[in-house]
Amino acid sequence: MRAFFRRGLLLASLRLLTLPALAQTTKTDSVNIRKIYDEALLRGQSYDNLRQLTSQIGARLSGSPQAQQAVDWGKVPMEKLGLDRVYLQEVMVPHWVRGAKEKAEIKPAKGKGVALNVCALGGSVGTGGKLRAGVVEVKSWAELAALPDSKVKGKFVFFNRPMNPTYIETGRAYGEAGDQRRNGAVEAAKRGAVGALVRSLSLAHDDFPHTGMMRYDEKVTKLPAAALSTNGADELSQLLKADPGLTLELEMNCQSLPEVKSYNVVGEVRGSKHPDEIIVVGGHLDSWDLGQGAHDDGTGCVQSMEVLRLLKATGLRPERTVRAVLFMNEENGVRGGEQYAALAKAAGEKHLAAMESDGGGFTPRGFNIEAPEATVRKMQQWQPLFEPYFSGLFVAGHSGTDIGPLKDQAKALVGYDCDSQRYFDIHHTAADTFDKVNRRELELGGASMASLVYLLSKYGL
Amino acid sequence: MRAFFRRGLLLASLRLLTLPALAQTTKTDSVNIRKIYDEALLRGQSYDNLRQLTSQIGARLSGSPQAQQAVDWGKVPMEKLGLDRVYLQEVMVPHWVRGAKEKAEIKPAKGKGVALNVCALGGSVGTGGKLRAGVVEVKSWAELAALPDSKVKGKFVFFNRPMNPTYIETGRAYGEAGDQRRNGAVEAAKRGAVGALVRSLSLAHDDFPHTGMMRYDEKVTKLPAAALSTNGADELSQLLKADPGLTLELEMNCQSLPEVKSYNVVGEVRGSKHPDEIIVVGGHLDSWDLGQGAHDDGTGCVQSMEVLRLLKATGLRPERTVRAVLFMNEENGVRGGEQYAALAKAAGEKHLAAMESDGGGFTPRGFNIEAPEATVRKMQQWQPLFEPYFSGLFVAGHSGTDIGPLKDQAKALVGYDCDSQRYFDIHHTAADTFDKVNRRELELGGASMASLVYLLSKYGL
Repeated sequence: MRAFFRRGLLLASLRLLTLPALAQTTKTDSVNIRKIYDEALLRGQSYDNLRQLTSQIGARLSGSPQAQQAVDWGKVPMEKLGLDRVYLQEVMVPHWVRGAKEKAEIKPAKGKGVALNVCALGGSVGTGGKLRAGVVEVKSWAELAALPDSKVKGKFVFFNRPMNPTYIETGRAYGEAGDQRRNGAVEAAKRGAVGALVRSLSLAHDDFPHTGMMRYDEKVTKLPAAALSTNGADELSQLLKADPGLTLELEMNCQSLPEVKSYNVVGEVRGSKHPDEIIVVGGHLDSWDLGQGAHDDGTGCVQSMEVLRLLKATGLRPERTVRAVLFMNEENGVRGGEQYAALAKAAGEKHLAAMESDGGGFTPRGFNIEAPEATVRKMQQWQPLFEPYFSGLFVAGHSGTDIGPLKDQAKALVGYDCDSQRYFDIHHTAADTFDKVNRRELELGGASMASLVYLLSKYGL
Repeated sequence: MRAFFRRGLLLASLRLLTLPALAQTTKTDSVNIRKIYDEALLRGQSYDNLRQLTSQIGARLSGSPQAQQAVDWGKVPMEKLGLDRVYLQEVMVPHWVRGAKEKAEIKPAKGKGVALNVCALGGSVGTGGKLRAGVVEVKSWAELAALPDSKVKGKFVFFNRPMNPTYIETGRAYGEAGDQRRNGAVEAAKRGAVGALVRSLSLAHDDFPHTGMMRYDEKVTKLPAAALSTNGADELSQLLKADPGLTLELEMNCQSLPEVKSYNVVGEVRGSKHPDEIIVVGGHLDSWDLGQGAHDDGTGCVQSMEVLRLLKATGLRPERTVRAVLFMNEENGVRGGEQYAALAKAAGEKHLAAMESDGGGFTPRGFNIEAPEATVRKMQQWQPLFEPYFSGLFVAGHSGTDIGPLKDQAKALVGYDCDSQRYFDIHHTAADTFDKVNRRELELGGASMASLVYLLSKYGL
C-alpha cells in the first residue's frame, strides 16, 4: 500500500508541474466539490436517516422481520429525492436465528462456576441442550495440529489468537485473525472436538462478544461455535493455566430456518450524457442481530443515499448513471451483491465503477481501489482535490464485499476508506449503536463519496 | 495550509529521486520509528495513566485542590521511569471558583418558565443574587453596533453566532466564533447591558453548555457572562422571535479568589551528545472544572510522559535533552507556559524545539509547525517516515498555547495534530470524560510524538 501511496504523491506533484491543462479543469471541479461538502456539512441528511434506521428498526439480520422493515424504510428517503427510478431486486437469503438461549459457564474443578459472556457465531448450529466438556486452548493452527487426538477429542477447542495490535490498519489484523472464526468449527470437528470457542475479533479489552460469519464443511460434523469477549477469553485462558481440567458448559439454541425472499433497494439517477454507463455506490442494509447495525453498515447505506441527494441538491447532475444500492445479506451470504451482479450481467449493463462504504462512518481518509494499475494512477491524479478535506489517500486495496461480484464487469471497484481505529471495538456487537456515530464524520464521508462519484461521472475511466 | 502541504508532497517526492544518501539514513530511522509504534501499541501506558488522572482526580482547575493533586500525581509516573531529573516549577495561578449556584430560566410574557442549561464562563463575576432582564440577540459585532442604546441598555446581550460548520478544520471555526466568548461581556458592558449570554462553542446540537475563558476590561463594568448549550441557544432564539419581550433570570455565584501557588511538573532525560540543546514536549495539567479534563488535556499530559517512556523502552536514548512538561494553568492564564519560558531564558537555556499536544487524543494526522519556512521544509522531509502511520501531514500552523511564550527561544514550535471532528463536541463540558478516549488513538498519538522527538533529537534543526 505504501508504494502506491508514494507513487500517488509523486504523480500528484508532477501533475502540478507538467499538466496545466488538467489544472484548468480542476478549478471547476474544486469549486463543485466544495459545494458538495458545504451541502453535506450544512444540510446533510445521513445522520438523521441513520437515526431513523437504527432507532426505529435497529438490528436487521437477513431473513428477519426487521430486515424487511429496513427494505420498506430504504425506499422512502430515495423516493423523496425524486430520482429517475427506485426499485427492488428480489433475492433469496439465508435465515439464521440466534434463539433465546445463549449461555456459558466455566466449571472449575473446585469452587463456584464463572459465567462467561458469549454469543453464537452466525450460522452456528445449537448445542441441543447443555453441552459440557473440557477445554483445550490453541493460538495457531500449528498448535492444534501438534496436539495428540487425546487432548482434543470430546473437548471444546478454544481459539485464542488475538488480533495483532501493532498493525496500524485494524482491518489487516481483522483479516489475519478471522480465520479462527471462519474455520474454527470445521478444524475442531476434524479432530473430534465437540465445539469451538473463539476469541472475539476485537482490539479492545472489554466484555462484548463479537459475532460474525462462520462456515461448515459438509464432510465433517457441524459443531456449535461461540465467540467469547476478549476479557472473557483472557479469563478463560488464565483459569485454564491454573486448572487445565476445568469444564465449560455451553447452551445455545440458534438454528438455520428455510431461506426467505428479500430485496436489494436501488435508487437511480440517469446520466445526462452517457446514461448507459453506470456507477454504483452502496452499503449493506442487513446487519448482525446484536446492537443496531449503526457503523456496520447503516452508515454505508445512508451515505450512499446521500450521494444522490448531494448531487441533486448541488445541481451537479451526473453525466453517467449513478445508482445507490442498499445490498441485502452482506453479513451471512452476500446474496444481494451476487444477485445485483448477475442481473446486471444478464441485462448487458455496462458498469464504469462500483463504490462501497462498509468500514464504518468515521473520518474519511480516501479510497481503496481495485483496478488495473493505470486506472489507479488515473484516479490518483484526483487526490489533490481531496487533500483539503483530509481525504486524499487513494491507494490500491480491497474495495468491498457486496461489489466484489462486479469485479469482471466494472473498470474499478472502490472502497470508501475512513479512520479504522474504533471500528473493530464495536463491530458485530451489541455496542454498534447510533451514539457511536459522529454526525460530522458521517456527513464528511458522504461528501467524500459524492465528490468521487461526481468526478467518475464527469471524466469516466 | 494547503499550499504548504502540496509543497511538502513535492519535496518528499523529489527527495526520493535525488537524495539517496538521506534515504540510507532513514532506513534506520524507519526501523526505529516502527519500534516506537510497536512499543506504544503493545505496552503503551498513556491510556492507563489517563484513566488514573481522570478517575482518581478528575476536573482540576487552576488553584483547586484537585489541581494540586494532579501535580502530586504527575510526578509519580515520571519518577517511575527513572529519568535523569523530575522537578517542579513554582508558579502563581488565578483561582476562580464556579460556586454552587448556576441557574437560568426564560420567563415568557405568558405561561411557564423554561429552564436553560447554562454555565458561567471562566473568570466571570457572579450575578449577586437573581438577575432578571430582557434579552437582545445578535449574531455579529456589526449587529450589536447597529442597535440603538435603548435596545441594549439594561438587557442581556445574547451572542448567538454559531461556529461555521463548513470548515473542515473545526479549530478554525472555534477560533472565529471564540471572540463572542472572549469579548462578549466587555462589548455588552460598553453598551450598558447587564450581562452576556454566549452560544456554546460547539458544532454539536446538544444540551451541554461549554465554559472557557472570558476577559474583562478594567475601564468598563464587569458583567456576568454565561454560556448556553447549542440547543438552549436555538430555543432561546426561537422564543425571542415569538416573544421579543421575554425576560431571563440568571443566578450565578462564581467568583475570583486570591491567587494560589502551583507548579509545572517537569521530567527530563539528558541528551547523550548535545545535552545543552533542549526539546520540550508537553500538555497542560489543569483543566476546566466540568467533566474530567480527559481530551483537554489529560491526553496531552499522558502522551508527553509517554514520549519519555517510549524512548527509554526502545533503547533510543536521545542525543539532545528531552523534557516532558505538564504545564499548569493553560485554561485561564497560561501562567505555567509563561513561567517555563521565563525560567528557561533566565537560565540561558537553549531550546531546539517545543511540542505541545492540546487538541485531544484522537487519531494522529501529523504536526503543525511554527518556524521559518526553511525549517518547516526541513521537517517536511521527514513526512515519508510518518506516512505508514497516517501521520505524515506536516504543515505550517498554530502550535500550542503553553509553548507560545518560547517562540523567540526555540527554533521550532510544533503542535501535535490529530483528527479534529469530535473535539469541540465535548470541549470544556461535563462530557469531556475518559470514556470518550479511544486507547489506540491515544497511544498512536504518543508514538507519533515520540517519533518526531526522536528525529529532532538525532538531527537537530
